Amino acid sequence: MHMTASKTPPADPHPRITVLGGSAEGPAGLDRLAGLGDIRIATDEVSLRDALPGTEILLVTDFRTDALEAAWPAADRLQWVHAASAGVDQLMFDALIESDIPVTNAQGIFDRSIAEYVLGAILMFAKDTRNNIRYQQERRWVHRDTETVAGKRVLVAGAGSIGRRIGALCRAVDMHVTGIARRAREADDVFEAIHAADDLDTHLAEADYVVVAAPLTEATENWFDAGRFRAMAGHARFINIGRGPIVVTEDLVAALNDGEIAGAALDVFEQEPLPADHPLWGMDNVLMSAHMAGDFIGWREALIDQFIDNLARWQAGEPLFNRVSKKHGYAPGGG
Amino acid sequence: MHMTASKTPPADPHPRITVLGGSAEGPAGLDRLAGLGDIRIATDEVSLRDALPGTEILLVTDFRTDALEAAWPAADRLQWVHAASAGVDQLMFDALIESDIPVTNAQGIFDRSIAEYVLGAILMFAKDTRNNIRYQQERRWVHRDTETVAGKRVLVAGAGSIGRRIGALCRAVDMHVTGIARRAREADDVFEAIHAADDLDTHLAEADYVVVAAPLTEATENWFDAGRFRAMAGHARFINIGRGPIVVTEDLVAALNDGEIAGAALDVFEQEPLPADHPLWGMDNVLMSAHMAGDFIGWREALIDQFIDNLARWQAGEPLFNRVSKKHGYAPGGG
Repeated sequence: MHMTASKTPPADPHPRITVLGGSAEGPAGLDRLAGLGDIRIATDEVSLRDALPGTEILLVTDFRTDALEAAWPAADRLQWVHAASAGVDQLMFDALIESDIPVTNAQGIFDRSIAEYVLGAILMFAKDTRNNIRYQQERRWVHRDTETVAGKRVLVAGAGSIGRRIGALCRAVDMHVTGIARRAREADDVFEAIHAADDLDTHLAEADYVVVAAPLTEATENWFDAGRFRAMAGHARFINIGRGPIVVTEDLVAALNDGEIAGAALDVFEQEPLPADHPLWGMDNVLMSAHMAGDFIGWREALIDQFIDNLARWQAGEPLFNRVSKKHGYAPGGG
Repeated sequence: MHMTASKTPPADPHPRITVLGGSAEGPAGLDRLAGLGDIRIATDEVSLRDALPGTEILLVTDFRTDALEAAWPAADRLQWVHAASAGVDQLMFDALIESDIPVTNAQGIFDRSIAEYVLGAILMFAKDTRNNIRYQQERRWVHRDTETVAGKRVLVAGAGSIGRRIGALCRAVDMHVTGIARRAREADDVFEAIHAADDLDTHLAEADYVVVAAPLTEATENWFDAGRFRAMAGHARFINIGRGPIVVTEDLVAALNDGEIAGAALDVFEQEPLPADHPLWGMDNVLMSAHMAGDFIGWREALIDQFIDNLARWQAGEPLFNRVSKKHGYAPGGG
């Protein structure tokens, strides 16, 4: 796990750290880095190309940017890339994958808040809260009988750090929880069973709720298409807090319109922000949020603090935590 | 706990049972009673007055009716009143209280579904779901940071059967749970503390969520008034799944408008159905539902089955379960 590509000793007490983010001020909480290194800020390919020469550590705070791939030739002393995000899909370009520069991510930070978001979505569907709000707006008293969640079945596609926490929270409210991972694994204190991704279709039909908590990789791109939605129960709800391109959005819209599934809660989309004329906005059986399920109050500061913890390891010459498997595109063994 | 007012032997194998409900067909699931007695159905004071003579058991399926008090003189052989509801406030009239006719209720049936409703409301507030729905209707992508529920504080006013289940579910998702009961009790596996109702005001300020799960009695009528809302934290949310008259609605509306508290989720109201011109309908920081928090799919059948279980005890001459304390107006010692 030690870094082997260093031209300088790994324990540089004052490394040059470039922060690649969305704004010239850098993200909230960046002041926490003061004194820990020679800090530069880049916001796009051009400013990154200027900042990279001499940079030993790159902290990527904008998970959407593809500037690093474009500016890559300027990375002459880079020893470590930390993505302050759960997903690292934009960093999985060939030159970085093939290098021996380690990539770490923010595994763990968003688990709890995302799990709460998922449970909230499940309860909204079960209690028909959407219609409560509609009837309130119409000033109409309309009594209905609604569902309970106890005893219902959740299938979590992606049994990593986030998926496990979702499963744990669902199990805490007495739901049955099954996981889908690359390979089948033993049941544990969260998952009653963990099936292999290859067997997904045979388990979709049993689920009342299907939750996508997978990273975006070559294996998961377009994973949920028309065939998958057809395999689900007609009363089932689909929840995506992973990445938009894991789902073929057109097929999801069709499945919702045709009654192949009963509803969807979506925090991520193939295109973000979702264009104003997209049909999803107008669908009553869809709950939408702006890629924010994990973004609890204080998350930016928490991300910087997590990076600082890993920086202390780097400076001490210790193995970094949350190291991403470049082969698989995510940090393995979460939980 | 044995009945002592019987003019007939308690073990009548085919008792006359009158069902007092809202419709001439009686409630769903009533067919389950076939063969268990001589069944009559009453829907109002007039039909109840006709049905009561000779009736040994009265099953009240409409918790709103006050017909029994009016028709009371016709109850010549009544031995047992079962309320197929959690609240028995309409049955606590002097003649029935002073009689030695036992009253039982539906304690337990609605606990789980009401607890899920409360947790759903808490997660809606925390995740700002109401605004997600608004922005979706406006086709606007608006990212916000939102709250987590882990570590937040819930105060449950009413630590009976329903309040305990609410507490248990909140605790399962890592919230801190405190109860309010008539008298202070020891902490237990659900409540970190149970304070006496007399000390309510000193504990209101600490709560992020205040949940009313109390029965309507003389002691709880108008319990939550302007002073109580003033004692709550400005960011706190108020949830009422008990009974409407426990709250002074005018004071609640003022507290919400003046920012004394941040929001409310209301399933019960002083007047039901709530009139269409009531200000609550139009308030963005209020979530409303039509007295249905407990009404899971299948609840009517579950209520009849519970009555049948108690009827078997009655026919065997055994003590009835879920006996209501006429002094306090609810079945004590729920769990």
